[in-house]
Amino acid sequence: MKQARPLPGYLVSRYKGWKATTYDENQAWYRHLAADGQHPRAMLISCCDSRVHVTSIFGADSGEFFIHRNIASLVPPCEPGGNHHGTSAAIEYAVTGLKVAHVIVMGHSYCGGVAGCHAMCSGKAPELEESTSFVGRWMDILRPGYDRLLPIKDEDTFLRDLEKEAVLISLENLMTFPFVSERVERGDLTLHGLWKDITNGSLLNYDPRADGFVPV
Amino acid sequence: MKQARPLPGYLVSRYKGWKATTYDENQAWYRHLAADGQHPRAMLISCCDSRVHVTSIFGADSGEFFIHRNIASLVPPCEPGGNHHGTSAAIEYAVTGLKVAHVIVMGHSYCGGVAGCHAMCSGKAPELEESTSFVGRWMDILRPGYDRLLPIKDEDTFLRDLEKEAVLISLENLMTFPFVSERVERGDLTLHGLWKDITNGSLLNYDPRADGFVPV
Amino acid sequence: MKQARPLPGYLVSRYKGWKATTYDENQAWYRHLAADGQHPRAMLISCCDSRVHVTSIFGADSGEFFIHRNIASLVPPCEPGGNHHGTSAAIEYAVTGLKVAHVIVMGHSYCGGVAGCHAMCSGKAPELEESTSFVGRWMDILRPGYDRLLPIKDEDTFLRDLEKEAVLISLENLMTFPFVSERVERGDLTLHGLWKDITNGSLLNYDPRADGFVPV
Amino acid sequence: MKQARPLPGYLVSRYKGWKATTYDENQAWYRHLAADGQHPRAMLISCCDSRVHVTSIFGADSGEFFIHRNIASLVPPCEPGGNHHGTSAAIEYAVTGLKVAHVIVMGHSYCGGVAGCHAMCSGKAPELEESTSFVGRWMDILRPGYDRLLPIKDEDTFLRDLEKEAVLISLENLMTFPFVSERVERGDLTLHGLWKDITNGSLLNYDPRADGFVPV
Repeated sequence: MKQARPLPGYLVSRYKGWKATTYDENQAWYRHLAADGQHPRAMLISCCDSRVHVTSIFGADSGEFFIHRNIASLVPPCEPGGNHHGTSAAIEYAVTGLKVAHVIVMGHSYCGGVAGCHAMCSGKAPELEESTSFVGRWMDILRPGYDRLLPIKDEDTFLRDLEKEAVLISLENLMTFPFVSERVERGDLTLHGLWKDITNGSLLNYDPRADGFVPV
Repeated sequence: MKQARPLPGYLVSRYKGWKATTYDENQAWYRHLAADGQHPRAMLISCCDSRVHVTSIFGADSGEFFIHRNIASLVPPCEPGGNHHGTSAAIEYAVTGLKVAHVIVMGHSYCGGVAGCHAMCSGKAPELEESTSFVGRWMDILRPGYDRLLPIKDEDTFLRDLEKEAVLISLENLMTFPFVSERVERGDLTLHGLWKDITNGSLLNYDPRADGFVPV
Repeated sequence: MKQARPLPGYLVSRYKGWKATTYDENQAWYRHLAADGQHPRAMLISCCDSRVHVTSIFGADSGEFFIHRNIASLVPPCEPGGNHHGTSAAIEYAVTGLKVAHVIVMGHSYCGGVAGCHAMCSGKAPELEESTSFVGRWMDILRPGYDRLLPIKDEDTFLRDLEKEAVLISLENLMTFPFVSERVERGDLTLHGLWKDITNGSLLNYDPRADGFVPV
Repeated sequence: MKQARPLPGYLVSRYKGWKATTYDENQAWYRHLAADGQHPRAMLISCCDSRVHVTSIFGADSGEFFIHRNIASLVPPCEPGGNHHGTSAAIEYAVTGLKVAHVIVMGHSYCGGVAGCHAMCSGKAPELEESTSFVGRWMDILRPGYDRLLPIKDEDTFLRDLEKEAVLISLENLMTFPFVSERVERGDLTLHGLWKDITNGSLLNYDPRADGFVPV
C-alpha cells in the first residue's frame, strides 16, 4: 500500500498530548476495557457531520456507546443479500452481539445529506439520480419520507421536516429487522429518535403520543 | 412510529449539562458553523467500538473532522450499483463534496469485528457464513486479508496482524474509487493508515517504506 | 529596495526541510485552504515575545487560528481616525470579515513590554515618556491599568499583576468596538482572557465570577 | 470585565496535552528563557492569516524569533506622534531593545488584506474608503504600491504582484525609521523580503540585483 503517508504533525502532537494526559490518567479503565471487552449500554446512530459529536453532547466515557456514523444517520430496511450492509452489520452486532439496551437515532439541522436528497427528489440534482452515485443511492432510503411530506410550502421548513422524517424512516426501518423488533416487543430493547438543532443547541425527542418532536 | 421511547433520564441530564456549559460557552462558534457550513480538513474512518473515540484522541473541536464509524473501520471496494453503499456514500461525500485533504483509516486492538472475521474464516462461526448474516457479509471485505496472512502461528499475534491488515485492505479499496485515486495522484488527497492499541494507548502509523506499522 | 539581503542559510535549510516534509505531506490541505479560503474559528491576540508561540500550545493546524501578535498583546480602545490602527484593523477583519467565534487575548509572565510600562509609569524610563517613543506611546494603552493597581507593595507581584491587568484592559477595550460589543451581546462572539506563566507552563483563565485568574 | 468566558474545552484539552509533553520535556529551556530573558536572532513580520505560521515553516524553537503579525505583514512609514503605533513599537522594541540581527518581512499569496486594498483602490469597496474603516486606513499603507503597479492587465497576476509590492513597501518604510537605517548602514541589521505561495509551498526572496523575487 505505497500511497499511505505519515500522520500530519499537528495530529501527532495532539495524540501525544492525549496519551500523556487523558490516557495516562485513565489507563486503569482503558486496560480494564481491553481485557474485559466492551459492554456499551446504547448504540448511537449519528451523522458523519463534523459539527455533531455525540460523545461530547452525552459526556461519553470510553466503553459507554457503540457509535455508528453515516451520512444523515440513516438506517436502511432489512434486506438480506441486498444493499447497505455496513449499517445493518453494525446494528446486528450491537443488538445481537453486544445486546445494547437502546438504539438512538439522531438527526440534525442543516444536514448536507438530507439537503442532497431534497435536491435529487425535486429534480435539481440529476447527477444524484445516476446509478453510479453512491450518495444518491444512499439517500434513496429517505425517498419515501420525501414523498410523504409533499407538497413543499416553505423550503426551509420542508428541509427541517425532512431531517426529522429521516429519523422516523430510520426507526421504522429498524423495526423491519427481526432481531430488533423481537427484542423491542419483549422489552429488551428500546428505540429513540432525536433531532438536534446545531444552531441553538436544542435537542428534540420523537414522542409517538404527540406524533412529533418535543424538547427533551 | 409508535415504538419510540423518551430518552433515558441520565442522557437528558447530561445533554442539559452540555447545553448549559459547552454549548453556551461556544455558541458563537456553533452558530457560525451552522450558518457557514462545515469545512472539515479530514475524514476519519473509525470503528463503532465504544472504546475508541477519535474526537478525544485528536482533540477535535466541532467542525474539524468528518467521521464515519462502522464495524472494523472497513472500506469496501468500489462497486457502483452493488453492496456496501453507506461507507462508499460517506467517502464520496467527504472527498467530492467537502473536498477533505486527508482520509485517515484507524483500526484498533481487540476489534470484535476482526475477531468475528477470524472465527468465520477459520470455520468456528458457521452462522456468520450464512447469506442472512449482515456482520458476516460485511466482514467478507476482510477475507482477502485473512488469506494473505495465513498460516496462523500464534492466535493473538494473528489477530493483531489481521486488525492491521484490515487497515491496509481499506486503504487499497479506497484507491479503487476513481474519485479517490485521481485526487491522490494529483496530490489533492492523502491517505493514512493507523492502528491503535487500546490497552496501552499507543498509536501506530503504516509506513510503506518499512511495509509495516511504526509508532507515530 | 536595494538593502534587502538573501535569507540566512540556516533559515533556507529549515524552509527546505519543511517543504520536503510538512508541506509535501499536507499539500492536499494547503491547496484546499488556498482554493477555499480560510475559515478560522478564533482570533488569538498574543505577544511578539519569542518565548510564547500559541500555535504550539494549542496544537494549531493551518487554517485554525487568525493570529495577531503585538507588544504585550494589547488592544487599544476604539478610536476611528486616531492611532493604533494595525490592531484595530486586525480585529475588524477577524470579527466582521472572517466572523470568528472567539477572540482570545493571551498575556504572559516576564513580558518586556509590561515591564517597560512599569518603568515608564514609575519614572524610571523617561525616554519612554517622549513623544517620539513608539514603545512608550503603545504602552500608554496600559497606563490606566497601572494606575488601578497602585500602590506597589512587592515589585515582582506588581509586575505579574500588571501583566494580567493588561489582559483585562484589552478585553475592556475590545468591548469599545461596536462591531465587537454587538456580537458579544448577541451571543455571536465570546471573549477570553488568558495569562501564561512561561516558567512553569501553567495557563490561567480570567473568571469574572471570581474576578481573578484561575487555572484552566 | 464581566463578559469574559472560559476557554473552550477542546483548547483546554490541547493545552494540557502540550503541558504534559512539549513543556515537560523542554522545561529546562523554558525556565532558562524565563530567567535569562529572550535573545531572539530575528524579528519576523508576518500576516495574521491562519494559513501562514512562520513558526512551522522555519522550525522555530522558543526564544528564536520575535514575531509581529498584522494584516498583510505591513510596516507603516516612521511617523512619530502619528498613526500605526503598534507595528512601529514592535520594530523599535526588537531593533533597539532586543537588538535582533534580521528583520524579515513575509507576504503570501491569496492575502485577504491585499485583495481588500485592491478592491478599495479600484473603487469596488467604497466602505473601505470611509474614515471609520480600520482595515481601509491600515491598507492605505499599500496605496503607493498599488499606484506604482498600474495599469492592471490580468487580475490574478496583479494581485500576486501587489502582494509582493506590499513586501517592498514595508522594506522601504522600515528604512524610514532612523534606528533601522542607521543599523542597516553600519551592518548591524539586515532586512529581508519574502513572499510565500500558500498553494504550492514555494518561498521567494527579494533580490535587489534582479529587482525581483527569486526562489530561496
